Amino acid sequence: MREVVIVGIGSTPFGRHAGTPIEQLAVSAAAQAIVDAGVDRERIGALYLGNFISGPLNGKEVLAGIVADQLGLPNIPCTKVEGACASGGIAFRHAWMAIASGQCDAAIAVGAETMTHATTAQSTAALNCAMDNEHDGPSGLTFPGLFGLAWRVHAQRYGTTRAQVSAVVRKNKRNGLLNPLAQMGAELTDEQIDSSATICDPLQLYDCCPTSDGAAAVVLVARSMLREVTGVPVDILAAIQTRGASRIAGHPDLCSFDATVSAAQRAFQAAGVAAADVDVVELHDCFSIAEVIDSEDLGLIPRGQGAAWAAEGRTAVDGDVAINPSGGLLAKGHPVGATGLGQLYEVVQQLRGTHPNQVPDARIGMTHNLGGTGVACTVSLLRAAS
Amino acid sequence: MREVVIVGIGSTPFGRHAGTPIEQLAVSAAAQAIVDAGVDRERIGALYLGNFISGPLNGKEVLAGIVADQLGLPNIPCTKVEGACASGGIAFRHAWMAIASGQCDAAIAVGAETMTHATTAQSTAALNCAMDNEHDGPSGLTFPGLFGLAWRVHAQRYGTTRAQVSAVVRKNKRNGLLNPLAQMGAELTDEQIDSSATICDPLQLYDCCPTSDGAAAVVLVARSMLREVTGVPVDILAAIQTRGASRIAGHPDLCSFDATVSAAQRAFQAAGVAAADVDVVELHDCFSIAEVIDSEDLGLIPRGQGAAWAAEGRTAVDGDVAINPSGGLLAKGHPVGATGLGQLYEVVQQLRGTHPNQVPDARIGMTHNLGGTGVACTVSLLRAAS
Repeated sequence: MREVVIVGIGSTPFGRHAGTPIEQLAVSAAAQAIVDAGVDRERIGALYLGNFISGPLNGKEVLAGIVADQLGLPNIPCTKVEGACASGGIAFRHAWMAIASGQCDAAIAVGAETMTHATTAQSTAALNCAMDNEHDGPSGLTFPGLFGLAWRVHAQRYGTTRAQVSAVVRKNKRNGLLNPLAQMGAELTDEQIDSSATICDPLQLYDCCPTSDGAAAVVLVARSMLREVTGVPVDILAAIQTRGASRIAGHPDLCSFDATVSAAQRAFQAAGVAAADVDVVELHDCFSIAEVIDSEDLGLIPRGQGAAWAAEGRTAVDGDVAINPSGGLLAKGHPVGATGLGQLYEVVQQLRGTHPNQVPDARIGMTHNLGGTGVACTVSLLRAAS
Repeated sequence: MREVVIVGIGSTPFGRHAGTPIEQLAVSAAAQAIVDAGVDRERIGALYLGNFISGPLNGKEVLAGIVADQLGLPNIPCTKVEGACASGGIAFRHAWMAIASGQCDAAIAVGAETMTHATTAQSTAALNCAMDNEHDGPSGLTFPGLFGLAWRVHAQRYGTTRAQVSAVVRKNKRNGLLNPLAQMGAELTDEQIDSSATICDPLQLYDCCPTSDGAAAVVLVARSMLREVTGVPVDILAAIQTRGASRIAGHPDLCSFDATVSAAQRAFQAAGVAAADVDVVELHDCFSIAEVIDSEDLGLIPRGQGAAWAAEGRTAVDGDVAINPSGGLLAKGHPVGATGLGQLYEVVQQLRGTHPNQVPDARIGMTHNLGGTGVACTVSLLRAAS
């Protein structure tokens, strides 16, 4: 496999883009990434588009070809990939694979979703397409229900408290204030969090990521092509995709996702780095408790201590490991198919040293994108160019 | 790139599977392909699932992971790919690529769709997700409208007649009678075709493929792994994916699809074979006129003579080139995401010499899968193992 580097990134703001067609958001992010890369469009050999529910919510598919057409890309393979909330990470991995395997020298991964135009009932029904509905549908659970259960197990087993989990919320919402692309940055007090509406006990309003529109994109090239582009490179050390159980009862432990655990292990092995080497991670905090579980599953924090570390400030930008300095899904937003590429956008900025909420001396960065009830996962490890 | 061979095939019948969940159809076809291959499930390193509109019509996504889970496959990357009606062909190409590039030694591609439970209005709206709706939506065209226009151009330019096009319908419907998996085989007279309902002038009822449920699957391995399996191998000479214009006005010619033309050219070049070497092709006859156009775009028949060749019997099983001996989409059916893999199922049988409508001495086979208004295309070339 050939070495691959990221040379261009682009993103729309995450938030409300009422009335803007999804393909227009995707084209905007992709065009920005192409300019940032300084790559000749004729050299791009593959496009992967991550999207989850444009069919149900927009009546639009074949978006990969539509976006390539509007970008003026040549006649290349254009593929939509889907793995629920991990769709963006999967798009990135496939663009990486197309280059690593020698199919082409340059590729682009784009992620896009529009959701805010739908009613809550419509978007909840669409999001539940990520469940194994034949088996888990009768449970009546939605995703807040699943993560509420996970929180209860975590609290019972490890003594995790509301106040500790609130530290995750406060950190990510505060980080979001520094991110010009974020949908919902805020300076929140514990009392504001405590008194917010119950969504699915123990989850309250600020524990849940918002509904979002947005798009993000990354341009990748083979290392051997670096001299042909002008974008500031970031090395890809690993791009891993795994699967876990597709139904809730298939998970032996409700507060750990096998797909994350195995993806992280494989990524560290492929990259030849250890968890302790990671300076910054953008991980899949669709709910506050998800950040706690993810950080433990990734091996970044000892099991059971995820919320405690947040409360102690050890996951802040100047902490032991910076988690979600972008604001994460909680504050930056979660336009589902775009999220994985949005994470890469953030980590590339960190490793270029140009992030508005910069982690000091960030050298090794990680992204983590999780889909469904843990059925699909991607983990990437990136390194600042030396 | 490493050499890759197909060693297992599986398929449900195409037709009505009312009440059967889509994942159950996919698992059935995939399990059959795994048994046919005689491959150890633990050796399968990637799963690609082609599906188009399970989101809008079933409220189900992440099907790749769900199907892998139910098949008892290991923790491997599982990805849904989508390119409208070419989704199945795209799944095949990605499974091929995973092995050719050395990511894994064995992979499975599955395609599935369920549509017959939906109303005509629902399925028409879902199928129109394959259009560039921002640009072509205001035209009011559905797919019969597009292919009706193409027919008019073909008739005006080349003198193609109703009777010639009816020869395509008669052949494919008759071929379908010999295919136990086909939804709508029939012995039709010209008069029956002529007097059938007008769908979108000049398209009549029998010119249009039916709405279908179904699934099909193919197991592929690296040639170096052949000794570990028992399935009868068929060589993959080329697996090409292209794109064309995403909007109707982007096509310089309404009765030719650039994506097909370039896919065929690239496939012949990659395989080192010529169009004249092709003994049997399963191509994308979503409408009778589509078979005419496709056969010309693929370079199998001189431009303008596609319908004439059918009328002269030159595309029959014992003709110059056997086109759609399975019955094609017109008779076998078109469960969209499954169609591309269903075509491979048919051609593999031909090259193994075990097809119920066998082409004599078939050595080189071709498949052609076309999505949207020609925005996505796959072409594969296969060879009987020597």
